[in-house]
Amino acid sequence: MVIRRISVLGVGLLGGSIGLAAKSALNGVEIVGYGHRKVTLLRAVEIGAIDRFATKVTEAVEGADLVILCTPVGVFEGLVGEMANSLKAGAVVSDWGRTKRSVVVLGEANLPEGVHFVGSHPMAGSEKRGVEFARADLFANALCILTPTVKTDKEALEAVEGFWKGLGMRTTRLSPQENDQLLAEVSHLPHALAAALVTLQSEKALNLAGKGFLDATRIAGGDGALWRDILMDNRDNLLAAIAELKKRLGELEGLLSGEEREELAKWLDRAATRRAKLHEQKLKELNLD
Amino acid sequence: MVIRRISVLGVGLLGGSIGLAAKSALNGVEIVGYGHRKVTLLRAVEIGAIDRFATKVTEAVEGADLVILCTPVGVFEGLVGEMANSLKAGAVVSDWGRTKRSVVVLGEANLPEGVHFVGSHPMAGSEKRGVEFARADLFANALCILTPTVKTDKEALEAVEGFWKGLGMRTTRLSPQENDQLLAEVSHLPHALAAALVTLQSEKALNLAGKGFLDATRIAGGDGALWRDILMDNRDNLLAAIAELKKRLGELEGLLSGEEREELAKWLDRAATRRAKLHEQKLKELNLD
Repeated sequence: MVIRRISVLGVGLLGGSIGLAAKSALNGVEIVGYGHRKVTLLRAVEIGAIDRFATKVTEAVEGADLVILCTPVGVFEGLVGEMANSLKAGAVVSDWGRTKRSVVVLGEANLPEGVHFVGSHPMAGSEKRGVEFARADLFANALCILTPTVKTDKEALEAVEGFWKGLGMRTTRLSPQENDQLLAEVSHLPHALAAALVTLQSEKALNLAGKGFLDATRIAGGDGALWRDILMDNRDNLLAAIAELKKRLGELEGLLSGEEREELAKWLDRAATRRAKLHEQKLKELNLD
Repeated sequence: MVIRRISVLGVGLLGGSIGLAAKSALNGVEIVGYGHRKVTLLRAVEIGAIDRFATKVTEAVEGADLVILCTPVGVFEGLVGEMANSLKAGAVVSDWGRTKRSVVVLGEANLPEGVHFVGSHPMAGSEKRGVEFARADLFANALCILTPTVKTDKEALEAVEGFWKGLGMRTTRLSPQENDQLLAEVSHLPHALAAALVTLQSEKALNLAGKGFLDATRIAGGDGALWRDILMDNRDNLLAAIAELKKRLGELEGLLSGEEREELAKWLDRAATRRAKLHEQKLKELNLD
């Protein structure tokens, strides 16, 4: 499948970055943007993230080989419904939703015969919002999870996988269930914890906050409505992850109350060793320092 | 009080950095190092962090105007006992302990008449360990908490405060109780949480960890024995902070289970707003980016 026209629905930091990266990686591809704020769309054209835009979904997806949903997940249902009859035969629809069970069901159930849905979850991003922060290199070395099901068209899956690889990403395949369960552990729980950690501080304590606290809570700076959608959509897995965390905190409470010095040092060392190993691994993967 | 000789007990990253910073900030000051590993002491002389060293505490503190305890807190009691009769009249003893109640009681109870103890808590540091990572600029713009009590000698307090300011730090005064309670919130709880967060991950989930997870858990990389001492010494306050966190997690569980979408967005937004405000404030204070 050759991708000649891509429709990016939602042209913020993410959608804009897809446009910039695709235009630099793929020869002669046309990027059509869709959004509800004209000033954003004009800005996206100005910085070269999209070639043109449409303010109707039906127009935005016309003739597109690949349509990517980059709006908040809450809007996906409406968009899929609107576009269904305007997609050309053989078109592939994918998305940038961070939770995948509900989105994949939605895509598979509401698109017509001959149009294919492939769930994808590119793990690249920033706390920054808005197309003015879009960057062609947002994807470099980052991981993209693809979430095929038994219903997924093989060729469409390979096309979407190839697309993200073309933007510089590493890819892996997980079921939508696995994606949601693992992300609850490694992303949604940390986000919820960072928010709780910021909220419980007294003003006096916050005045003493240093770089460690800032790093530990950086992810709590994300947009409330966006994260509400993610956490709510994945609430069963998140509740299970919170329960698991409480178990670990219970262990810690026991060690502190019982003054078990040796065991506490071991409990902390296990975490430090694991964190150090992870850091090594990620340094290589992400080219971070 | 003029500081001509400083004894630094424990010459790792912290003690070494004090030596480097003091030698660059104070004219003609002599730094005497003490430690139990000769290779470290030789290295400290080599990089100019100390002028000379002693392997006996009694020799290391001889004639010192200022003695700073930079070893792990667990060793403080032994050091204070050993040095008590070798300190000159008018000498001031301070420390780099992160918890202050027990250390201040120890210093005040075990030093002879005419020698003064002043608790200090310079909030500068690094996950790195060892004198080879010592830096003269470790203190620049960071906050130093001084923890005087009714027993603290005023002149000694001002001398220690002036010393840290001379190394580029901002200073504030808190009671030992306040230091421990506020630090439980803003430092010890985040550390414990980061450790719990790393530990509960499955291997599969860790493989998906991105920059957000790395930042959120960076503080979990600290030395287990060092953090064991801190958390154990402050266990009453830490247990209270864990209880407060569980209350916040209970709120979140309620919002998720009840599908209270609006309230969940508000809960997340409150944290995001507070985090953003903190970030602004700290950017100015710490000259971070």
